[in-house]
Formats: sequence, C-alpha cells, structure tokens
Amino acid sequence: MTPHKIELYVPAITPFAADMSVDHARLVAHARALLAAGAHGLAPFGTTSEANSMSVAERMAALEALIEGGIDPQVLIPGTGCAALPDTVALSAHATRLGCRGVLVLPPFYYKGVPEDGVFAAFAQVIETVGAADLGVYLYHIPQMSGVPITPALIERLLKAYPGTIRGLKDSAGKWDYARDVIAAFPEIATYSASEAMIVKNAAAGGGGCISASSNVNPAGIRALIDALGTPAEDAALAQVSAVRAIFEGLPLIPAIKAAVAAQQDDPAYARLRPPFMPTGAEHADAIARAVALSGDGVAA
Amino acid sequence: MTPHKIELYVPAITPFAADMSVDHARLVAHARALLAAGAHGLAPFGTTSEANSMSVAERMAALEALIEGGIDPQVLIPGTGCAALPDTVALSAHATRLGCRGVLVLPPFYYKGVPEDGVFAAFAQVIETVGAADLGVYLYHIPQMSGVPITPALIERLLKAYPGTIRGLKDSAGKWDYARDVIAAFPEIATYSASEAMIVKNAAAGGGGCISASSNVNPAGIRALIDALGTPAEDAALAQVSAVRAIFEGLPLIPAIKAAVAAQQDDPAYARLRPPFMPTGAEHADAIARAVALSGDGVAA
Repeated sequence: MTPHKIELYVPAITPFAADMSVDHARLVAHARALLAAGAHGLAPFGTTSEANSMSVAERMAALEALIEGGIDPQVLIPGTGCAALPDTVALSAHATRLGCRGVLVLPPFYYKGVPEDGVFAAFAQVIETVGAADLGVYLYHIPQMSGVPITPALIERLLKAYPGTIRGLKDSAGKWDYARDVIAAFPEIATYSASEAMIVKNAAAGGGGCISASSNVNPAGIRALIDALGTPAEDAALAQVSAVRAIFEGLPLIPAIKAAVAAQQDDPAYARLRPPFMPTGAEHADAIARAVALSGDGVAA
Repeated sequence: MTPHKIELYVPAITPFAADMSVDHARLVAHARALLAAGAHGLAPFGTTSEANSMSVAERMAALEALIEGGIDPQVLIPGTGCAALPDTVALSAHATRLGCRGVLVLPPFYYKGVPEDGVFAAFAQVIETVGAADLGVYLYHIPQMSGVPITPALIERLLKAYPGTIRGLKDSAGKWDYARDVIAAFPEIATYSASEAMIVKNAAAGGGGCISASSNVNPAGIRALIDALGTPAEDAALAQVSAVRAIFEGLPLIPAIKAAVAAQQDDPAYARLRPPFMPTGAEHADAIARAVALSGDGVAA
C-alpha cells in the first residue's frame, strides 16, 4: 500500500450577503485565496461551511459558482450529506456530474439510535441511485453533530460492497484512537483528521492529512507543516499550527472562524452567520486577534 | 384563561410505494381512516412520519395530496422544521397558504450547543419571512432527536415577540415535569404530550391533549379516553391506551408503528420505511400483534 499524499483540504466558510443569501463573489475570492496560500483543495459545504443551514438549490448554485470562478473541480470534495436521502442523492449526483474529486457524505442525521444496517442501506442507496462510476465517497464521521457514528464495522461493509467508490473518511470527532484504528484497518482509504495538530500523527500512521476548520485562517501555516514533515522544521511548524488551533478550541468555533477571516480580509461581511449561529461577542475579540496575528496574512493571495 | 379543548392530533405515518416514492393514495386513505376513527386532526410530516427523510418538494406534494384528498386544512398541523431555514420558510409559507391550522416547527437541528439567542433568531426569521398573519406556529420540543430543546425562557421570549403566532407546543421529550411547567407558565398556548398515557394529567393541568405516534394504531381508543375524561369510564380507557403504548415503548417505535398499521390494514405496503430505518424483525411480530389486538380495528373507517 503506497502511503497517501498528505493534504490540506479546507472546509471553506460560506460568506453571506447582507440579505443573507449566499455571497458567491466572496466565496470564490476566499476559495482562491486558500488555494493560493497552499491548500491542496477545498471541502466546501461541510459543518464549518454552515451547509446544513443552506437549501439544496443554494448548495448547488454555490458549487457551480466555485467552478465557474475557476476552481478546478478535481480539488473539490463538497459536502453532500443531508437528513433526507433524496437531497443527498441530488447533491452527490450534481457534484459528480461537475467533475468533483469526490463528495463528503454525512449519514442521515435527524434520527438517532438507528440500526447500523439502516446507515449502511442509506449509503448504499446514495451510491446506487447516483450510479456513476466516477462517484468518490468520503465518509463523514462527526457523531457530536450527526448523532450517527461511522463505525469501523460500517466502513468494512461499505468497502466490501463499493471498493472503488469509498475513497476516504473525515474524522471530526477528534479522538486519535479512532483515527489510528481506521487508518490501520483501512489503509486503502485516505483518512483526514479535523485538527491540524494531529497532522504529524496522521501522516506517520498513513493517513491523508487534514480537513480543519481553522485552515480557513491559517492555511499557509498548515501547508508549511505538511511541507516540513520529517524535516528539522517540523517542530516549529507544529507549534505554530497548534497555537492557532488552541485559540479556536476555546471559542464558539464557526462564528470565531468567520470573525477571524473577516479580520484577515479587513471585510466584516465575511463574519455574517445564519441562525442558529450568532456573531462572537466582544469578549472574544482579543483571542480572535491573537489567532489572526499568529496566522499572519493567512489567506492573502 | 379558557381551558383548551383536549384533542388528538395524529402524527400520521408516511406510506411509501415500492419505488420508495411517497404513496399519496395510501397517505390519504390512512388520514381519512384516522379522522373517521375519532382523531380531531393530523400532525403529518413530523418525526413519526419520517418527514426528515423527505425532500421539501416531496413534503409539499404530500400535503397537497392530503388536501386534494378531502382533508380539511383546518385540522392539519404539518411539520415544517428543517435543518436549513430556507426550507423551513418554504414549507411553512406553503402550508399557511393552503390554509393549514398551523405548522409544527423544529428548531434547526444539525448544529448542537448553539446559543438560545440563535434559536430565537431562527424562529423569528421563519415567522418574519413567512410574514403571514394567519401563520400559526407550534413549537416542537424533541431534544433527543433535534439536540436543541425548546426551553421555557425561549417560549417566553417568542410569546412576547409573536403573541398571536405562537399557538402551541408539542412535548416529545416525555418528561412530565417539563410539560407541567410549560402548561402552568404559558396557559395561552396548547401544549400537547407525545404519549396518550399522559392525557389525563395533561388535561387536568390545562394542556391541549396529545400528538402521539401510537395514535396511528389506536386512534379510537385514545379518542375514547378523551371522551371519557372525568367520567367513570376514564380508568378503563386509560388502561387500554396505556397498555398499547407500553408495547410500542419496548419496540423500535417508527418501524413498529408502520408494521402495526400494515397488520391492521392487512396491507404490507404500509410497513415500508426509508433508510436509516429498517423493518422490524420477526422477534417483534408477537408484540406488534398484541398491540393490534388491543387496538381493535383501530383505524378502520
């Protein structure tokens, strides 16, 4: 098994206009800046992107805007998992048709305590209904939001049934033991950690890198760490990304990330959020300023 | 404050056709049978209805089918709460335009640990964007699924801001202390319990009755209990509905309710479920048969 390339995919925030519609121009500008700063690709329309606060039509239009804005679909792994399977199918088929590298798929997340057979059936229905040979599925493990874990037993079953289609997993639970076990058991898929502070361990174990909320603010630092892996520069790079990460872990994550991007870009529009999120309060301004200072110009192209 | 009328609103199951599309004919037939058996109204497209496994377009078409099928919209309180506010707005506006008595609204349910200010903002945005004087909002408290409780502080704030619009609450958490406190603090809204076993307490406290999954199977028994409140027949009626309820509480609820309706109607099509639900196993057949036997012909028109 060839080790995976270690990559940074950014779960890009979704900017909103004053009328709270999706702001395509800022979305494209932010996406370009992230890639220019060293991100290998983008995983837009995930949790950090407030995608579950967007309609199917809004998600499709925003993905089209990214591609029309010049982003190569082969560096896009958009989130497509919804509570309702018809929506997941529609988004996954759309992204695949547009040539995306893959899709990041949540299990159906409204109902809790559902049987693993049912979660398998849900993924199977998405894969078979999309019915495209070039569909690439990245499983999205974020039980603290979805309530439905992607267990090793489920991964094994999906890999047996759809070996060419299941290509990766994003571990957003943040427990290293889980990621370690998944990487060891399923080296053929790329397992991404949700924290850049785990990149060194992830890479050493044979994972695929990270898809991290804070990479919206610190993409250059995280890319520097990836480039420094195994070199004398690794420790300093890890210290830098860990310091930024630690600040965000003490804050309301998504509002703080958007506030930090707004500060970096000197454009308050980036900080707008849809309910149920609220802007960060003044009590977090110093911490956000520290994270921005540590990240440097971050996403400046 | 005049006490509320004690009512049974049935969270009607959603039948699916062999191709897993929504089966409008069986949906209408079941709805008619429930009303003929004594239900005061229907609260379709809630949790029991697998509504969160349906797209917005499917939910609109199914509501239209019910009304075209002869169901008076004034006895319909459809669920309209989605993860994404644009979807909640679209469904709530649609149901209001069709003349529905009200809409049962979940808070946005993907994100967890969100601030109460943000949950208030979400409901406010739905109410103000729909912008219809005849919009009636019933708040849906089901934290075990949504992850976002409807707290008394939130109810108070919403009632102050939208006194004519907030009309009721469904308590699906099943903790009597919560329902008792909500009824006592907010007697002007109709609070429905999710279990018919609580109807006597709910009515005595000044609540509005129940919206119960098992009323898909035992509507006549529950209506008999409501009609018997305060009469010598109350104890026997309560014993009957409690016995049926107790059986379902030991089973995977939604699959078991659908299997029981299928048995009652002698039509296995009613038992079909969308993933992530799976059909009940053979080990539950005896319990389901007992619930059906205790319910009598239940929904037979």
